[in-house]
Amino acid sequence: MAKHFADRMLDAVEEKQAPLCVGLDPMYERLPKQIREIASKSPGGLSEQAAAAKEFCQSVIDIVAEHVPCVKLQTACFERCGPSGMHAYFEVADYAHEANLVVISDVKRADIGSTAEAYAAAHLEEVFIGEGDDEHIVTVDAVTVNPYFGIDGVQPFIDVAKQGGQGVFVVVRTTNPSAIDFQDLKDDEGRRVFEHVAERVNDWANQAGCVGDSGYSLLGAVVPATYPEDTKLLRELMPNSLLLVPGVGAQGGTFADAAIAFHEDGWGGIVTASRSIIYAWERPEYEHLGEVNWEDAIEAAVLNTKANLAEALALRAASV
Amino acid sequence: MAKHFADRMLDAVEEKQAPLCVGLDPMYERLPKQIREIASKSPGGLSEQAAAAKEFCQSVIDIVAEHVPCVKLQTACFERCGPSGMHAYFEVADYAHEANLVVISDVKRADIGSTAEAYAAAHLEEVFIGEGDDEHIVTVDAVTVNPYFGIDGVQPFIDVAKQGGQGVFVVVRTTNPSAIDFQDLKDDEGRRVFEHVAERVNDWANQAGCVGDSGYSLLGAVVPATYPEDTKLLRELMPNSLLLVPGVGAQGGTFADAAIAFHEDGWGGIVTASRSIIYAWERPEYEHLGEVNWEDAIEAAVLNTKANLAEALALRAASV
Repeated sequence: MAKHFADRMLDAVEEKQAPLCVGLDPMYERLPKQIREIASKSPGGLSEQAAAAKEFCQSVIDIVAEHVPCVKLQTACFERCGPSGMHAYFEVADYAHEANLVVISDVKRADIGSTAEAYAAAHLEEVFIGEGDDEHIVTVDAVTVNPYFGIDGVQPFIDVAKQGGQGVFVVVRTTNPSAIDFQDLKDDEGRRVFEHVAERVNDWANQAGCVGDSGYSLLGAVVPATYPEDTKLLRELMPNSLLLVPGVGAQGGTFADAAIAFHEDGWGGIVTASRSIIYAWERPEYEHLGEVNWEDAIEAAVLNTKANLAEALALRAASV
Repeated sequence: MAKHFADRMLDAVEEKQAPLCVGLDPMYERLPKQIREIASKSPGGLSEQAAAAKEFCQSVIDIVAEHVPCVKLQTACFERCGPSGMHAYFEVADYAHEANLVVISDVKRADIGSTAEAYAAAHLEEVFIGEGDDEHIVTVDAVTVNPYFGIDGVQPFIDVAKQGGQGVFVVVRTTNPSAIDFQDLKDDEGRRVFEHVAERVNDWANQAGCVGDSGYSLLGAVVPATYPEDTKLLRELMPNSLLLVPGVGAQGGTFADAAIAFHEDGWGGIVTASRSIIYAWERPEYEHLGEVNWEDAIEAAVLNTKANLAEALALRAASV
């Protein structure tokens, strides 16, 4: 029996002393010139864009693995590279595991019945990559899912995850301006759709066999830092769920906003930072390093992000 | 400039005299024994399950292409086969185009910003498959998307589709029991979430450049046959959208229920039938043919489905 996802995740957070996840969103046009050149010379069966995505993500993993417990792979960026992109995606997941990182796959899938089961199997069960002596098995540790179908769209992922010691994060609220189109519709008591989603996530998270020794469920939620006025409520509505928190930085959330997604004991949140770290050399504060020193910029950014998050959590701990 | 999606779709419906789409949901364990045997002998670079999925779908296309205008590929079933499954998926899409079928890709993706753009590009832009002299380009004609993120999650698909003469179907309501978890939450006037989604889909569908000569938009909606009491309302809320209608058969909807998704002139709906056709030999009415005659069972099922739908539409036309 595999160890419970939340317990593994929190052990990893403790080991790295950082509830921080680096998002791997490789977009070809933003990759460093050197990476694109390497990829163009050694496609090795992958399309050039897929090869570049793989090369870049593996380099990022080399840099961040000692500093953070977790990476999040954005499947859209790999699917964008055609069929060989999905091959690169599993190779990157495998590489991250070799570096002892927890791997979250940001697939945001949802469907019903046997189709949902197929998605759950596709993204949580074992996948064979490589050929002959090089063949090996890859599995990711957790996936994100979309709640629109209700429990029918989520349960198949929970069922597979429970068997494999894996996790599932339901997208409860999103960071974008039009999140309000439907997520903020109010019922006759003024409660919004995303509050209903959070309440149901809490029900589902407390099914038999879902909560680990840590007290956290394998079923977590995505709750952005961009609406801090609601984050406290969402933390209370889902006390046993790990909250994955995007939206710090470019999208307008602060580390102090993200800290609200944690319990007062300092646990229960995992802040994700993607482009602010992996494309750090584009940012004014690291521009002096230049694109040629993109690896140094990434390392500086991950260390700064980690320090800023630690500071925000310490301030919050002092204030409660 | 590519011809408008809705105009192409309706031309195809007229040519085949059937607003019917056959869903291709290849599930390895349900495929005919002969297909699994062929696949195990000729993997050709694909995994055995991916090869079987491809072989089966191509056989189904050979059978149904003369009878229906359109097929819908369920990406989950291909993703389930690992990276080579996505290769098989694009090969099947290509094969369907060669058979002069409109190809809808049932991806149900959604995300925001550049991630949504990456999904839109992944599933609506050109993909190169094959190698060397055999390399060629595949594009699908339309995709399904999930509305939970609001317009931010849909617009990137509309933008790509507009350029390519392609279509987008927003999942407004789903067929499953737990659809009511969130889609049926009511506002203080008693209007449900899915009604709000339908109203917004209608706004988005009538953006500049979205409506074709037929009067229909490139932005359609998925509206199931399983809640006939709401179908009339949804048809009225989205007058310029093609409605893709699943849920007839195993899920409990009837052809008469599906007919409600059409305008009184008999246009505007496309009924999808998947497992009731492609696994027809499993059904009591075709069981006598046996698994060995699975191709005959599929042909009988597609012809019966087409006749039943035509009958339901004629009855409705007579009653309005």
